[in-house]
Amino acid sequence: MERIYDRVALIGLGLIASSMFWAMKRDGNLAGEVTGYARTEATRETARRIGLCDRVCDSMAEAVKDADLVILCVPVGAMGPVMEEIAPHLKPGCTVTDVGSVKGDVIRSVTPHLPEGVFFVPGHPLAGTEHSGPESGFAELFDNRWTLLIPGSAPDEVVGDLRSFWERLGANVDLMDADHHDLVLAVTSHTPHLIAYTMVGVADDLRRVTDSEVIKYSAAGFRDFTRIAASDPTMWRDVFLTNKEATLEILGRFTEELFALQRAIRTGDGQHLFDYFTRTRAIRRGIIQAGQDTAAPNFGRGPSGQK
Amino acid sequence: MERIYDRVALIGLGLIASSMFWAMKRDGNLAGEVTGYARTEATRETARRIGLCDRVCDSMAEAVKDADLVILCVPVGAMGPVMEEIAPHLKPGCTVTDVGSVKGDVIRSVTPHLPEGVFFVPGHPLAGTEHSGPESGFAELFDNRWTLLIPGSAPDEVVGDLRSFWERLGANVDLMDADHHDLVLAVTSHTPHLIAYTMVGVADDLRRVTDSEVIKYSAAGFRDFTRIAASDPTMWRDVFLTNKEATLEILGRFTEELFALQRAIRTGDGQHLFDYFTRTRAIRRGIIQAGQDTAAPNFGRGPSGQK
Repeated sequence: MERIYDRVALIGLGLIASSMFWAMKRDGNLAGEVTGYARTEATRETARRIGLCDRVCDSMAEAVKDADLVILCVPVGAMGPVMEEIAPHLKPGCTVTDVGSVKGDVIRSVTPHLPEGVFFVPGHPLAGTEHSGPESGFAELFDNRWTLLIPGSAPDEVVGDLRSFWERLGANVDLMDADHHDLVLAVTSHTPHLIAYTMVGVADDLRRVTDSEVIKYSAAGFRDFTRIAASDPTMWRDVFLTNKEATLEILGRFTEELFALQRAIRTGDGQHLFDYFTRTRAIRRGIIQAGQDTAAPNFGRGPSGQK
Repeated sequence: MERIYDRVALIGLGLIASSMFWAMKRDGNLAGEVTGYARTEATRETARRIGLCDRVCDSMAEAVKDADLVILCVPVGAMGPVMEEIAPHLKPGCTVTDVGSVKGDVIRSVTPHLPEGVFFVPGHPLAGTEHSGPESGFAELFDNRWTLLIPGSAPDEVVGDLRSFWERLGANVDLMDADHHDLVLAVTSHTPHLIAYTMVGVADDLRRVTDSEVIKYSAAGFRDFTRIAASDPTMWRDVFLTNKEATLEILGRFTEELFALQRAIRTGDGQHLFDYFTRTRAIRRGIIQAGQDTAAPNFGRGPSGQK
């Protein structure tokens, strides 16, 4: 297939950027040279050692020079400052995109720094694992997952190229506006993460149940929460600080429902509980039918939870 | 190895009972004849068709006749009535155990019906999947998982036999008192399940985000919740109705913590969030080191979430 971008720059070299690089290599001709930049020297050294990026640069300016596509893969809170720093070095006509989990705030912080003739098309691949860092990436991360792009006022052709790029990385692509994105993600990702972090924190805090008990007896449900609650703390801090409104709205709905169920438990209303628990099974079936999860018991974990 | 029980009766033929049967068969000589009973004719027919149990009986009385070990594998709320029904048919000196997720309530409802000379040793295998029914069982379910036994006043020898039985089914065994069990499980299982059910219910309810969006974009965290929230509704209704106090206590702690994090989001206290999210990573490491989960990203799900 045809090459889409002659030069691609990855700013930030964590799980998403490294997976994008390996997926570009898997395609073979999706991009010409791929440059990369990471803030710490340690990460740049790791990247050089494992062959992550065709060329690892010691400055953002060098990395984005002559790039046709610049991908911001830094925590949401760092997007504005990074854009400010690279702006003078961007090639006219280039496309800038990002992979942040929040879109409204990123647009508000990036757009003021955007030079004339450079297009910003925010994006968000809905894929990840609980691991982070340059060595955590793999080419298949985006396969059959969804990437959301926010077209804004960018020309159709610019959006179309980025869409094709993501499709060749393995993803399905949908277009969405920023506010709706932030609400959808508050439901499917941000609030579940906050809740999982909270539950794991509660277990850790409780003096009457030891950590060792929590760890040994985690197979009964809790361990799924701990996987989510092992995600990158910087990334998630920024998500909650920047998608404040939608997260607080969904949290409000969540506590309202939780209190209703709590009341049903207190009053012994078994029918309310049974009906609620029956309804939620249907959503699970939908996810499996849509190919977004495995139907194998326990996510297909080996019998002992180890593979 | 030596046979422990000449005759074992399984009352209720769902995920746990069927897994126990296959694990007994895997051992080869753990039990002599295994009888089984299920409330509905449909389940009994399925059991006969797939060879689940050496003999499927049409009445509980027939199933428990001459049994040395009777295992109650019915929802927690049904334990008392079942015990009442089988009591006159139990062999003197036999052991009765159960696999319910709540222990205090089961003990309170079962003990009054216990005939003289029959020992009740409640148990709880901390293992399961989101699937239920007679066809969902598999021999490896208990391997390297923990089973908790409540010795109460039963003779050491009776408890020791049951312990050996569970160890040969693949499990590690710990002894615990009923109140502590119910608190530990409220933390590691009951509250996480309630929270997962709630979150999935909220997503399903929200008119501004469609179910189809929730399903498509679930990979970002939400799908792990849907697995938990796909568990058997009857079983979970009974768990919450019978482990009311401990669940409400842990829920209280949970909402307290959640409100603190919610406040940190509202006030923009990034340090509080970062510190909280860093702390919870340690618990995950402990679970992996203890062999209770896989370190593979996303539980080792295939790249596309399908295996």
